[in-house]
This record gives sequence, structure tokens and C-alpha cells, in this order.
Amino acid sequence: MVNAGAMSGSGNLMDFLDEPFPDVGTYEDFHTIDWLREKSRDTDRHRKITSKSKESIWEFIKSLLDAWSGWVVMLLIGLLAGTLAGVIDLAVDWMTDLKEGVCLSAFWYSHEQCCWTSNETTFEDRDKCPLWQKWSELLVNQSEGASAYILNYLMYILWALLFAFLAVSLVRVFAPYACGSGIPEIKTILSGFIIRGYLGKWTLLIKTVTLVLVVSSGLSLGKEGPLVHVACCCGNFFSSLFSKYSKNEGKRREVLSAAAAAGVSVAFGAPIGGVLFSLEELCDYINDPNMTRPVDDIPDRPAGVGVYTAMWQLALALIFKIVVTIFTFGMKIPSGLFIPSMAVGAIAGRMVGIGVEQLAYHHHDWIIFRNWCRPGADCVTPGLYAMVGAAACLGGVTRMTVSLVVIMFELTGGLEYIVPLMAAAVTSKWVADAFGKEGIYEAHIHLNGYPFLDVKDEFTHRTLATDVMRPRRGEPPLSVLTQDSMTVEDVETLIKETDYNGFPVVVSRDSERLIGFAQRRELILAIKNARQRQEGIVSNSIMYFTEEPPELPANSPHPLKLRRILNLSPFTVTDHTPMETVVDIFRKLGLRQCLVTRSGRLLGIITKKDVLRHMAQMANQDPESIMFN
Amino acid sequence: MVNAGAMSGSGNLMDFLDEPFPDVGTYEDFHTIDWLREKSRDTDRHRKITSKSKESIWEFIKSLLDAWSGWVVMLLIGLLAGTLAGVIDLAVDWMTDLKEGVCLSAFWYSHEQCCWTSNETTFEDRDKCPLWQKWSELLVNQSEGASAYILNYLMYILWALLFAFLAVSLVRVFAPYACGSGIPEIKTILSGFIIRGYLGKWTLLIKTVTLVLVVSSGLSLGKEGPLVHVACCCGNFFSSLFSKYSKNEGKRREVLSAAAAAGVSVAFGAPIGGVLFSLEELCDYINDPNMTRPVDDIPDRPAGVGVYTAMWQLALALIFKIVVTIFTFGMKIPSGLFIPSMAVGAIAGRMVGIGVEQLAYHHHDWIIFRNWCRPGADCVTPGLYAMVGAAACLGGVTRMTVSLVVIMFELTGGLEYIVPLMAAAVTSKWVADAFGKEGIYEAHIHLNGYPFLDVKDEFTHRTLATDVMRPRRGEPPLSVLTQDSMTVEDVETLIKETDYNGFPVVVSRDSERLIGFAQRRELILAIKNARQRQEGIVSNSIMYFTEEPPELPANSPHPLKLRRILNLSPFTVTDHTPMETVVDIFRKLGLRQCLVTRSGRLLGIITKKDVLRHMAQMANQDPESIMFN
Repeated sequence: MVNAGAMSGSGNLMDFLDEPFPDVGTYEDFHTIDWLREKSRDTDRHRKITSKSKESIWEFIKSLLDAWSGWVVMLLIGLLAGTLAGVIDLAVDWMTDLKEGVCLSAFWYSHEQCCWTSNETTFEDRDKCPLWQKWSELLVNQSEGASAYILNYLMYILWALLFAFLAVSLVRVFAPYACGSGIPEIKTILSGFIIRGYLGKWTLLIKTVTLVLVVSSGLSLGKEGPLVHVACCCGNFFSSLFSKYSKNEGKRREVLSAAAAAGVSVAFGAPIGGVLFSLEELCDYINDPNMTRPVDDIPDRPAGVGVYTAMWQLALALIFKIVVTIFTFGMKIPSGLFIPSMAVGAIAGRMVGIGVEQLAYHHHDWIIFRNWCRPGADCVTPGLYAMVGAAACLGGVTRMTVSLVVIMFELTGGLEYIVPLMAAAVTSKWVADAFGKEGIYEAHIHLNGYPFLDVKDEFTHRTLATDVMRPRRGEPPLSVLTQDSMTVEDVETLIKETDYNGFPVVVSRDSERLIGFAQRRELILAIKNARQRQEGIVSNSIMYFTEEPPELPANSPHPLKLRRILNLSPFTVTDHTPMETVVDIFRKLGLRQCLVTRSGRLLGIITKKDVLRHMAQMANQDPESIMFN
Repeated sequence: MVNAGAMSGSGNLMDFLDEPFPDVGTYEDFHTIDWLREKSRDTDRHRKITSKSKESIWEFIKSLLDAWSGWVVMLLIGLLAGTLAGVIDLAVDWMTDLKEGVCLSAFWYSHEQCCWTSNETTFEDRDKCPLWQKWSELLVNQSEGASAYILNYLMYILWALLFAFLAVSLVRVFAPYACGSGIPEIKTILSGFIIRGYLGKWTLLIKTVTLVLVVSSGLSLGKEGPLVHVACCCGNFFSSLFSKYSKNEGKRREVLSAAAAAGVSVAFGAPIGGVLFSLEELCDYINDPNMTRPVDDIPDRPAGVGVYTAMWQLALALIFKIVVTIFTFGMKIPSGLFIPSMAVGAIAGRMVGIGVEQLAYHHHDWIIFRNWCRPGADCVTPGLYAMVGAAACLGGVTRMTVSLVVIMFELTGGLEYIVPLMAAAVTSKWVADAFGKEGIYEAHIHLNGYPFLDVKDEFTHRTLATDVMRPRRGEPPLSVLTQDSMTVEDVETLIKETDYNGFPVVVSRDSERLIGFAQRRELILAIKNARQRQEGIVSNSIMYFTEEPPELPANSPHPLKLRRILNLSPFTVTDHTPMETVVDIFRKLGLRQCLVTRSGRLLGIITKKDVLRHMAQMANQDPESIMFN
């Protein structure tokens, strides 16, 4: 299963002889990277640059540039992500208003921009500036009456359908990876998985455009998750400009995680500037059902007709919003979950708040109300209940606790809400955990079968490495290479007949003592290269991984030395190692595979996929749900 | 080197035969714990409880209690730590005032409490309530005049010296571990090191009492660090009540880290209640030099004589505070660093603020001031400069960035300070890092020679496991046990002649194939136990670690099976593994030791101490500075 990328790298083969690790992308699509290896490759690179920097001024400057490239990349990501978020905002404003009408002075103005210079000073009248024309005014010259109303309504629906249709088509045809919030995939990629094109320029473009379309169309979705994806695409783009990051999947992920943080900042308004944007975003929803501000100083009043109507409307809105959000999140469009789930929680919280307000008004002698709730005093703030409800609902969906409280803290900017927010976040996590330990993003990761080892997953079963390793009892023995007795043809046959990522190298088939591990891809490249360029390498040349060539009969062909591609420090555990420890090792060291030995003899191999399948099996889930390696 | 604790555990030896791991404390003082082992012991315990819980109602209730014990412990820690912090606060108030005078109505009242019921309503007069008597009034019946002033001053100094002397003596005589802030040691303990008594009840008592004494004496120190230590002592006390935590050093550390967090909350006023306390604490220092509030709305004015005097006083205060803080932190008393270093930063920041204010006043046409600083407007807030200075100085000392900004954010409660605080924290970290990468707590850890593997320490040298492992070239070979050919006497001699924590077990001295690892302490216990209770075990009995006894001549004594104490999954790396990877493995998996193999043969051993010494050597430091294992 050698893909085109590997073959097209043949121009680098000359270098390859000199380099311990080839510069071609070493991992195939939908495979897991080896963190320890990436790390040691980066250390090698760093060491080389440091030693070279003493040779000349030019090399010294290059080493300085290399050291600063991280800051440069971060700066560029911040600038681009921030710009894109701003552009998306402006475009959404304009297209949302386009559903209602158009500006005569310049069609690219939103309603607000159009009426900016209007002479009307009150807020209500400002909306009615003459330059802004509703569709009915523009098309049939009517602004009032039933037919104008119906026409406007139809135009509204038409535009919304058009936007949604365009978005779905663009995603489907040009960039299937642009759908969804992107957060499950980004979590998986950050944990060390390769999904080619998921953070590509094409995805960036289509996701940005379709995000504007779907948000403008009025679907029940948020743009927070997609903005994190957009920021990660920016990170991927800029890291591809610097060889320090583009050639090392581990370093690239450092940039990507910083980019994801920038995306959250941009989306939620962590410190720099975005706070106000997010504050508005959130308050839009909390104030949605036309009531009192979140923090009011209006004394509690008995419920009038308006309150009862509002309660019914809120109850309907709650049901409708839940149903619509569930369906929207499953659609193949860019869609975030933060704002819709906060809206659901805010509506529910608001209803509870109104209920408590009335309870306090009518029963102000109850022990819990007595100290605060004299008649005519302001003691219950329904808006605060909405805020807490929003946090609780988002916490239940994503299972965030600390970061949630910090985000809400930053959004509201007030210390007095911390205690209710913390209580809500912890309670909602408890309640949600009773239904299942996975947050929505982890659930999506599992649905997609990505190999993701969650830090929170506890593995407490009593199985041992020997129960999980391959080959199982009855299976054919492990495919291994011997250090100095196989011919080139033997190895080529082995490569053709199996699709393993690599092969352990042992002293001999009898002793089975492990000496190292050879990557499939590097074997292929090395043999191809040797056959083309090295004198006397034929099919029955002996391949050896030792320092010295083996002793061969006089007329045997020239042997092929492959020690350079041998990983001399493969990771091993004994067959008696508890799987609990093995899971821990895979998780903490970011391994791709681990060899299993007993008394120094090689017994088998455990890959990340084997670990995940075993964990699924132990949790009574289908092990075949883990699809990638 | 068997210590008394191990021997006194002999009452448990009967159990020991049934239990795979003895319940006696398995680690000696000043040794590092093995995280993987602690974890698997806890999993075993958990598994046992879960399977037992199905047997009877009583066992089921016991399993529920076990599951909830974590919450109970946390609740108790929070209550005790909060109570202690409150008591310390009250006691400090009283004793600080005791230096000035005494309350006639009740001597245990502080000045403020004494005058609480005073009829004087203005703040200035309230201080002068008749019930509160200065020492001069009480002793010589004089409240004014030079002699009264001198007497009061002498009494003040006398009390302060008495408090300081008492504190030093108490620490020296009763609990040497109560000195310092305790944070370096707690960091080391949390990373898996044993320091017996450091978190004991005696330390808790003496630290609490002496903390009150030193703070009341007026020394330049804070109580934040010591409060974290106090909270950890509480955590250690409560975890000793639950066998789940007391018998597992790993689980105990989970409680301790939560207790440390509770300590920070109590000390700095994270959410629950403490915010206001800390806010006052901080503002005391920021307002120290009697000036405008931190956030003012007073228009900028030209500097008068008062400002020039204040600048001189601030400059002197700055120098004095720096010198005094440096000396105080080195004294053997409970002393925190947070508040003094914030005070230093606040003074410096305030000076810069005043300077900028005058600059803006006199040069309000400069491009940076032009937009904000018209004459008579308020455009520079020296108090904000003090706040930022405090954060910058604390950041430089401790190298915190994110947590520092969050703490300052919680302290000030205002979103508008985030940007300057972040800029200050990052800049001060850069500047401080240019002098050396270590924060003050890491520096103290190194000074004390504790085995602490910092996550931030980067190891980028090109050494291999073979360069670090013992035995070195020329040293006697590694002390190993063979699986079925050594006698009890051989092993006893080996134990007597060496002081290693454990011994690798190999198939035979010829093959050197590794099969496991046996702990020194468990070997001693097992042999002692077998000699006392098992029929026919004599000095020349063969000890075997295999499942089946070895074939022995007909008249040989009864062999001793020790498979139970054999760790069948010792951690191994190959001799070619880069030390970079080895450091990573030790850090992430919390290992105590790691065996080194080549082609399945045992070559040597690397302990945490070896790793740290190697790292010190590579950083051109004295490897002998690492003192513990």
C-alpha cells in the first residue's frame, strides 16, 4: 500500500543516503504518528543548526531566524485568524440583512451601515432610514399591508434556502472536510493522527465561505467551533512555510494547538479585543425572549399576562430549539454547538428564574427568601439564571468545567457569578456523566472510529499485554526480519504480502532476540534506492542490519547494509505487563506500536489500534468501531 | 540498611503471604515512589472492592463509602484549611495590635474589635476609643509627648523581637520542616518523593503558630506559600484516616495536590469568599505609600512637593524592601514570597506610573498622549502601574504566566487590566529567563538536592542510555539474582553487601536474559518470613522465581519459591535509546528505575538519580548536587 506521495519523494533519495531520517512525509494518511521519534528528529535538527551556527555569520543568522520562527508563525496565525473572524462577522451581518432588503446607496452595506448617516436619531426610527429598502418596497413599491408582508416573508425564506443550499453544495462538491464543527477531528489530529487535507487551504476557503452562508441563513448553529477549525487551517498553512514545522509532524502539532487556542480566543473573546464581541454574542441569546436585562434592578413584581405568555413562548422555544439543534448538528455543513446549546440552557434557566421570582414574590416569608425578599425589593434576577443555565447546558454537552467557568467569567466579567457558575458546571457534569462519560466531541471521535486515547478514559481491567498482542494463539507467527540472513527478495516478498507499518528485526529466527525495528516505508525506499544506484545489489543479495557484514560464501553477491534505517531503541514491554500500564505508556509517550518480549525473546506486537480495540471490547463496545491505525 | 519501620511491620507478615503487595509502607524516607506500581496497586484494591461488593449489602455499602471517601476528604480539607486561615488572620490582627497596646474590656480583642462599640463615628476618632490603651497610657499613664512616644516605640520593637525569637525557637526545636514557604518541598513531594514528617501534624501545628508570630512581628514576608503548606498538612492528616489514601503513596498525592489547590484558594481568594480577603491584602501594599486609589478619576496634576517627597520615599522603600525580603526568605522561619515580591513590584510600578503621569501632563502633545491626555483630563492611573508592576515582579520571581494573570484577574476583578497584565507577565518571564530558566521554587529544589524532574527542563544532548547506566566501564558487574540457582545465603549476602533498592532477576548468569525485578525490602521480608514459618528452609535452600521448582539432587533442602514478589513487568530500554527519550519516559511515567538491555540481554540499570545526575553534568553543574534517589 505505497501511496503516490512516497513515490514522488524519489527525488530526495540521494539525500536519503546521507540522512538518518528521510525528509519525505513519513506517515500515510489515517495513520498515527510516533511522538518519540518526531521529538528526537527535531532534537537532531536543532543540534545540527546549533553546531553549524558557529561556522559563519550567515549560519548564525539562520539559527536566530529558526529560533524566532515560532513567534513569527504565531503572530501570522493570530493576524490571519483574527482577520478572518472579522470578515466573517461583517459578511454575516450583510447577508443576514440581505434576507430582508438592500441598501440603495451601496448594495454591500448592511442595514446598520446603510442607515449610519441617517438623520433619524432614535433607535426605532433609525431602522427606517429611506436608503434601506425592504424587498417589497424595492420590487412592488409597497412597504405596508398583507401582500408586502407576504412578499418579504417569501424573499426571506428564499434567501435562507439559497444560502443553505449553496453551503451544502459547496461543502459536498469541493471540501467534504469543511462540514461539522471540526473540533473532534482537531482533537484527534492534535493527539497525533494524520488526516490529509483536513487543515488544507481548500478546506479553509470553503469553510470560511460556507460558515458565512449557514450562519446568515439562520440555521440553529454557532460559529465558535468552526472558527477554531479555521484558525487551525491558518496554523497549518503558516507552519508549511517553515521547514522546522512542515517537516516534523510533532512540531507542527505544537503550532496547531496554539492555533486552536487562538481560535478559541477569537471565537470567545479571550483577552485581546474579542471579549466585547462574545459578550454581545451571548447576550443576544440571553435577551432573546424580549425580557429584562441579565442583571436587573427592577423590584420583583407579580406575574402579569405578559409573563404567562412569555412562559409559554419560552417553553415552545425550548422544545423547538432542542429539536432543531439536534438535527442541525448532524447536517454536513459547518456548524458549531456552543451558541445553540447555550441558548437552550439560557431559555431553560430563564424559565426557572421567572418561576423563582414569582415564588419569592408570593412567599417572601419562606426561610430561604426571608432575608433578601421583602415585597417591593429586587431579590431574584432571572437573567442570572439564564446565564447559569447556559453554562450548565454547555457543560453537560461538552463536559468542560474549569475552562467553561473561565470562559463564562470572561464573558460576564463579574466575580459575583463565579459561585453559581461553578456549582452549575459541576452539577451538570455529574448529571451528564451518569448517562455516559463521553462529551459530544469524544462521542463524535468514536463515531468516526478515530484512534484517540482519551486521558479521562480509565482502564481498570486485569488483562495483560499477552492477551492483546498479535499474533494471537493459532495465528501465523509474527512477520520479522533477521539481522543478517534474509535476501533482498525475501524482504520484498514480505513487504508485498503484508501491509504492516514496520517489522521487528531479530538476531535469528531461533533465538528471537530483538535488536530493533525497521519502518516499512524506509525499507521500501532503501531497497529501491540501492537497486538503482548501488553496484551489485541483486535479488539474492543478503540484507544485514549489523555493523559488520556477515561472513558469506566466496561467490555470493554484494550484501546490502541497512543499519541506518534500523531503529535501535524500539519500545518493549514484557508479556506480563498489565494492560493498564500499557495503556498508560501509549497515552503518555504517544507510541504507535510497542513490542512484547518474554525473557528477552520477541513474542509479538501491540499497536495503538490493538489497544483501542481491546479497550472497546472491555467496555462492551464493538472493537471494529476503531477503524484507523 | 533496613530501617526500624520495616522491622516493626513484622506483625503483618502473616498477611504478607496472602497479599501480592505488603501493606507496610514500602518506601524509605528520601526515596522516590514508583508511580506505575502505585497505580496498579490501587487498581487491584479497587477491583477487589468491586468484586466483594456483590457478596453482601454490608460490602456494597463499604464500596459506596470507598467511592465517596474522596469527596469527604476534600470537604474536610477545605473546611480545616479555611478555618485555619481564618484563625491565623484573626490571631495576626490581634497580635499586630498587641505591639501597640491592649484592650481594657478584653485583652483578646484587637484594636478594631475593641473599638467596635465605640460611639465615635468618624474613622479617625474611632481609633481613639477609650477602651483601647496604648502601652504608654497603660504603663505610665501618658498618651502624648516624647517619652510616651519612645516608650511605645520600644514596646513595639520588644514585642516584634519577642515574636520573631519565639518563632525561630519553635521552628528550630520542634519542627525544622516548618520553615520556609514549603512550596519547593511540596512540588517535590507531589512529583513522587518521600519526606517523612514534612506534612505531619507537628509541622502543621508549629507552622500555624509560627506563621502567626512571624507575620505579627512585621517581618517582610507573606503568608500565602505557608498557607499552601498548611493546607497540604491538612490533606495529609485527613488522607491518613482513609486506607484508600494512607496505604497508597500515589493516591495520597492526588489528595495532596487538591489540598495544595485549596491552599492557593484560601491564600489568594479564588472563588469562594477569599477574593475580598486577598483583594484587601494586595491593596494594602499597593496603597502603602499613602497615595491615590489604584483606579482614580482625579485629573492629572503637576507634581507638587508631596510627589517629589513620595518619589524619594518610594525609592528608599524599594531598596529597603528588596534587601529585607532577600534576607527574610533565607531565614529558617515560615515565610512566603508572594506578598513581599508583589510589594516590591508595586512600588516600582507606582514610581513608573508617577513618572508617566508627569510626562503626560507636561508633554500632552506627544503622539502617544495626544488622544487621551488633554490638560485637566485623567489619562494616567499610577495605581494601575503598581498593579502591573506587582504582577511583573511576582512573574519574574516565580515564572508563572497564565496562572498569574488569572490570580491577578481574580484579585482585581476587572477585564480591562488583562492586556497590560499579560504583557507584563510575558515580558518579565522573558527578561528573567535571560538570567536563568529556573523560578525561585525550582532553584530551591536544586539547592536542596531533591530529585525533581521538571517538565520544563529540556534535555537535548546526544547521549545514549549506555552512557548513563550502571555499571560503568571498569566497574564491577551489576548485582543480579538468577531465577533458580542461588541459595538463600547467597541472596542474604548480596543484600548485606549492597544497598540497592532492588535486583534484576535473570535466567542465568550466562544468558543474562531478564525475567523480572525484585524489591530489596520485599526480598528481606520474604526470606525472614520463610525462615521463621516455612518448614525446611535453611541457608542453602535454593531460591527460585519460576513457576515450577528447579530439578534438584535428591538430598538437597526444600527450595523457596519467591515468584510472588517478582515484578514480571520491569521497565526496559535498549542501550541505544537516546537519553532524551529516557528522560521523557522517567518524567511521564514516573519511574524509579529502568533496566537497560541489548538484544534481550541485561546490561545495566538507570535510576532517577542517575538521570538527574547526568542532566546536571550535561548542564555543567555538579552531579553530586543530586542527593536523593
